[in-house]
Amino acid sequence: MIYDLIIIGAGPAGLTASIYASRYKINHLVIGEIPGGLISEAHNVCNWPGEAEIGGYDLITKIKNHAEKLGAQIMIMEKVIEIKKENDIFILNTESQKKLEAKNILLTIGTKHRTLGLPEEKKYIGKGLAYCATCDAMFYKDKVVGVVGGGNSALTAALYLSEVAEKVYLIVRDDKFNGETVWVEHVINNKKIETIFNSGIQKLNGGNRLESIDLINGSNLKIDGLFVEIGTEPDELLIKQLNLTTDKGYIIVDKEQQTNIEGVWAAGDISTNSAGFRQVITACSEGAIATFSIFSSLQKNK
Amino acid sequence: MIYDLIIIGAGPAGLTASIYASRYKINHLVIGEIPGGLISEAHNVCNWPGEAEIGGYDLITKIKNHAEKLGAQIMIMEKVIEIKKENDIFILNTESQKKLEAKNILLTIGTKHRTLGLPEEKKYIGKGLAYCATCDAMFYKDKVVGVVGGGNSALTAALYLSEVAEKVYLIVRDDKFNGETVWVEHVINNKKIETIFNSGIQKLNGGNRLESIDLINGSNLKIDGLFVEIGTEPDELLIKQLNLTTDKGYIIVDKEQQTNIEGVWAAGDISTNSAGFRQVITACSEGAIATFSIFSSLQKNK
Repeated sequence: MIYDLIIIGAGPAGLTASIYASRYKINHLVIGEIPGGLISEAHNVCNWPGEAEIGGYDLITKIKNHAEKLGAQIMIMEKVIEIKKENDIFILNTESQKKLEAKNILLTIGTKHRTLGLPEEKKYIGKGLAYCATCDAMFYKDKVVGVVGGGNSALTAALYLSEVAEKVYLIVRDDKFNGETVWVEHVINNKKIETIFNSGIQKLNGGNRLESIDLINGSNLKIDGLFVEIGTEPDELLIKQLNLTTDKGYIIVDKEQQTNIEGVWAAGDISTNSAGFRQVITACSEGAIATFSIFSSLQKNK
Repeated sequence: MIYDLIIIGAGPAGLTASIYASRYKINHLVIGEIPGGLISEAHNVCNWPGEAEIGGYDLITKIKNHAEKLGAQIMIMEKVIEIKKENDIFILNTESQKKLEAKNILLTIGTKHRTLGLPEEKKYIGKGLAYCATCDAMFYKDKVVGVVGGGNSALTAALYLSEVAEKVYLIVRDDKFNGETVWVEHVINNKKIETIFNSGIQKLNGGNRLESIDLINGSNLKIDGLFVEIGTEPDELLIKQLNLTTDKGYIIVDKEQQTNIEGVWAAGDISTNSAGFRQVITACSEGAIATFSIFSSLQKNK
């Protein structure tokens, strides 16, 4: 059987695309490596409209239940390892050696936060360690926090945190910042932010929660929270196989969420749309727009 | 007092923008003419991710409560009748003669569905009469429905309804369609759709629910539902006062939701973004992106 659409990725973008696909009666399948994507890690989401506070896992479960109620077929814990186009049909091979075929592919594969690569890192996620200042800053009211990174996301994270926290250490690998001048100036003029250049983190310390960090120069900083803002990493595998054009690793899409390859669409964190503002709400919106475009394309090619 | 931001419109886009603005600690005010905007009229929303079925009014109430919980100041049943820019500050006058000032204006004023202009129209909204096929088609499974209009939205509505309903009457004012060829061809080849050209609706009949319509040629059609798809109307008042550039009445915005006038932003149904796919989810996303852009702009101009 040839699906009209296979959605690769079962996060907010992929599941919203599925909800719309079911409503448009598009014969489709969702394949997800991690159920829920990155958002399922967020210990609290406070900016999903209508939910003042909801666990990331709870939010994605609600969206998944919605998709399933409308009839979505969701294949979880499955990884697509090969994809090729033959005579306008896409042929997918999965890690468990399933072979699948579709007329359209929607990539909602998200990105992974770059991590510090420290052994204790996983243990402290949601327990003092976070990868998104917008999401988690409010948990550090009047606390001492650290931010790792020297680019725009680290600079804006430090500024944003300085409005909530008592003190912000900004830990930068190089001897200078690597972001826009205005952000750099604001950081320099902000009395709550103390920048430590030529540094990095050697070790995370604590019991149940993160309590302090050892820097590479040997010093120790007591902190209540640490924000790792050293960028995200798209997975290149399928992007390269499909010859998709990218910008800094993200898939370039047009207004309709279509890529440079006919029949291949992308939505959510992996795409260049939404002005690069990567949130659950923007991912869901892109998923909906992509499905609407695919529906129009299927109707035209009927 | 000069607000950092005044949001005009209290629908999904405006309230989501407020949620993000509160999280970024932007000193802002929301002014809304109709509490909730157009979506509050939808008797059932089935495509808001995470809610398989929710009343439009209930959904917007949840979002409004969220915004208020974060501290939003919302002025409802208030209409901005004049807006001008003086020395980089916007001065607003309202119908009740309030004078307000802000550094940035976000227009989330939505659009109004064009109506038939018939006296019984209001009575049947949600009781057989609808303005959005994507939203309400599923309530007409195996029923007989009418669609009014001859453009793309009417053609796609008729096609979409034909997948659910038993029979679709397409009532067109002119002697031909006014939409894309592919849609026209699909409508012509669809056996469930019967098109009536050179026609219009003279009268809506029924008791508690709509039961039949009188056409201008005097004939009567028994139907279970009628979809009015004759377009939407943006309100031009503020758009003209601010000299905003538009496309078919919609405010042209860039990726960051910024208009051609510095300090004026637009999001939701009134904007040209989201590939013209006007849904609650796309409106909320644009509201979030707009606030993020305004936050960046405020930081740069600090």
